[in-house]
Amino acid sequence: MSAPQQRPQTLVHSASLPGHRVEFGRDRPLVLDSGAELGPFTIAYQTYGTLDAERANAVLVCHALTGDQFVAETHPVTAKPGWWETMVGPGKPIDTERFFVICVNVLGACMGTTGPRDPNPATGRPYGLAFPVITVADMVRAQKLLIDHLGIEKLFCVLGGSMGGMQVLQWASAYPERVFAAVPIATGARHSAQNIAFHEVGRQAIMADPDWCHGDYLAQGRNPRRGLAVARMAAHITYLSESALHQKFGRNLQDRTRVTYGFEADFQVESYLRYQGSSFVERFDANSYLYLTRAMDYFDLAAEHGGVLANAFRATPVRFCLVSFTSDWLFPTSESRAIVHSLNAVAANVSFVEIESDKGHDAFLLEEPEFAQTLSGFLAGSAAHRGLK
Amino acid sequence: MSAPQQRPQTLVHSASLPGHRVEFGRDRPLVLDSGAELGPFTIAYQTYGTLDAERANAVLVCHALTGDQFVAETHPVTAKPGWWETMVGPGKPIDTERFFVICVNVLGACMGTTGPRDPNPATGRPYGLAFPVITVADMVRAQKLLIDHLGIEKLFCVLGGSMGGMQVLQWASAYPERVFAAVPIATGARHSAQNIAFHEVGRQAIMADPDWCHGDYLAQGRNPRRGLAVARMAAHITYLSESALHQKFGRNLQDRTRVTYGFEADFQVESYLRYQGSSFVERFDANSYLYLTRAMDYFDLAAEHGGVLANAFRATPVRFCLVSFTSDWLFPTSESRAIVHSLNAVAANVSFVEIESDKGHDAFLLEEPEFAQTLSGFLAGSAAHRGLK
Repeated sequence: MSAPQQRPQTLVHSASLPGHRVEFGRDRPLVLDSGAELGPFTIAYQTYGTLDAERANAVLVCHALTGDQFVAETHPVTAKPGWWETMVGPGKPIDTERFFVICVNVLGACMGTTGPRDPNPATGRPYGLAFPVITVADMVRAQKLLIDHLGIEKLFCVLGGSMGGMQVLQWASAYPERVFAAVPIATGARHSAQNIAFHEVGRQAIMADPDWCHGDYLAQGRNPRRGLAVARMAAHITYLSESALHQKFGRNLQDRTRVTYGFEADFQVESYLRYQGSSFVERFDANSYLYLTRAMDYFDLAAEHGGVLANAFRATPVRFCLVSFTSDWLFPTSESRAIVHSLNAVAANVSFVEIESDKGHDAFLLEEPEFAQTLSGFLAGSAAHRGLK
Repeated sequence: MSAPQQRPQTLVHSASLPGHRVEFGRDRPLVLDSGAELGPFTIAYQTYGTLDAERANAVLVCHALTGDQFVAETHPVTAKPGWWETMVGPGKPIDTERFFVICVNVLGACMGTTGPRDPNPATGRPYGLAFPVITVADMVRAQKLLIDHLGIEKLFCVLGGSMGGMQVLQWASAYPERVFAAVPIATGARHSAQNIAFHEVGRQAIMADPDWCHGDYLAQGRNPRRGLAVARMAAHITYLSESALHQKFGRNLQDRTRVTYGFEADFQVESYLRYQGSSFVERFDANSYLYLTRAMDYFDLAAEHGGVLANAFRATPVRFCLVSFTSDWLFPTSESRAIVHSLNAVAANVSFVEIESDKGHDAFLLEEPEFAQTLSGFLAGSAAHRGLK
């Protein structure tokens, strides 16, 4: 260990996190889209509610880029509420008194499922960049292993927003017979040039940090905190709308009555962004950020089907409900509409709701009554069709 | 000099740049908005065309954040065409056969006008963060000293886009008797929360670079190239539109037929952004970037006039032409419209054109025939009213 530890590695070791763990791929590694083989690897997940006797009431919630499996409980690292407690819980739209909710930390992430910060079996040291690049399809392959393991033949519903929505689309496309209903929210069937560009800025910010050490920072007792914070700040702007920023902060000053003619955080919006950056590095791994953004960039469902998105859904039995938000400029409504058109082209059962909101992309994580009603209504109707009690 | 020079300082020293130079503030320093005093300082500028006998045909072009005075000639550092050759030159809308065009490198910049990389008279070392924070009003104060020096009583027209447009508004507000016509383009009377947020990301990227050395990099023979490149990449996305990025790059791959499952620039848009970042650091000073973004953040013309923008223009004799572009999301049309409303409220002479364009904020720098016609027409009409030959 040559370099001294500049600052303690604050990330909680995944082994100390609560929740379920299953190991896969020891005997037969998972073959990834890249051709690389991964195994053994761990899947960490949480569940809420009870699986019914027919194993028919399972709802898989897919998390977004920086989310995790702690969807409806106090987070063990941040002590904040679960990221979707507005939507998941007893009596909530995704009602844990009725449904058995599963949320899986995605492959490549850093909350217990194997990712670049975990030991590489070949060396005993953290993978770093030796971790294979994974895709959204790879994430879903790993989730399917878990669903098989749980003995669930058919998921009642798969839901998720943003990167979670990409997983929903991938589930419906790759395993249509295993999904009764699918709710892709605030997402797209491919990542746009602008979205790739923002991700690339974040990656370059991380890689520009000398503490990144070409991905080998854990082995060297370092952590590219500054680069990861900058990446988070840039990304965070894209999660909000101009109008949300204006209403929340405008040009209000932070704890002062006039500007300081300096480079401190004079404006509230600066202070807020700095906080977003610095708090993020306490819970997220920089290499995981590289890998998960890359998975989103690579997502292009049409390209996997001869360039025709409708081919991804031919003869699909899945019931779809798509949701977009008017002020979401990361995944604007046009992205959802393109999916709807493709589903219409194959005569799929699809409903589509554009929710009026000024909260930007993050609207799917926030209190939005019309959104909650949409999910409740769709799940109730689907449950009736599925014959759930 | 303790630290070794990691890489040659590639920025051209301002003394070696061609063009005009005038020193001000030796006897009487310039008093800045912050209360700090600056002097002596140098103003570097370029001119095109000939000042007429009445000194009535002077057009002041104000450059944007990363522009400079080389508006209509091959750039001495980059060897690229001047940044507004589409608009300024013989027979062009800003016709140098008719008008005497002046372009001033703004205070705080790095192409010859005094900024943070120049020697601090108090120490003989580069200013770094000892350079006082300047505002758009300070930039315009310095320009006015030059206009006085040139013996020009009244500018025929002041034009500029983005930060240049802020200077135009400041000129018209602070010195209405010195301006006959004003053309603020793709700009706003104040910087929005979202724009401050993007600037803050860029500044944090620079400050996170250990080679920034708390602003003292020049004295230490270093240069925060990586941080500045990341700042430029983030900003560059905001200068384009989603549609421009989609049409220009889409998801096209760069010199390859399939993705590499790695972190190289697989996509053209990544390669393009990396180039924008790396080429920018060859011509721009990181501290200048901090100071000029801060000046834009601080700009709030209404706040300087009791919170009422119209008060900035009471009884103005200036003829205004405002221009915005439909796909500009950095300074959307609503920002220009707010200025127009304020000008209407004081019965100013104002015309306003929103140009249909998919090129985003950068549209004002690009070939846009309707924009060129707008400028030609406004200048011709104003010249007739002014009685120019």
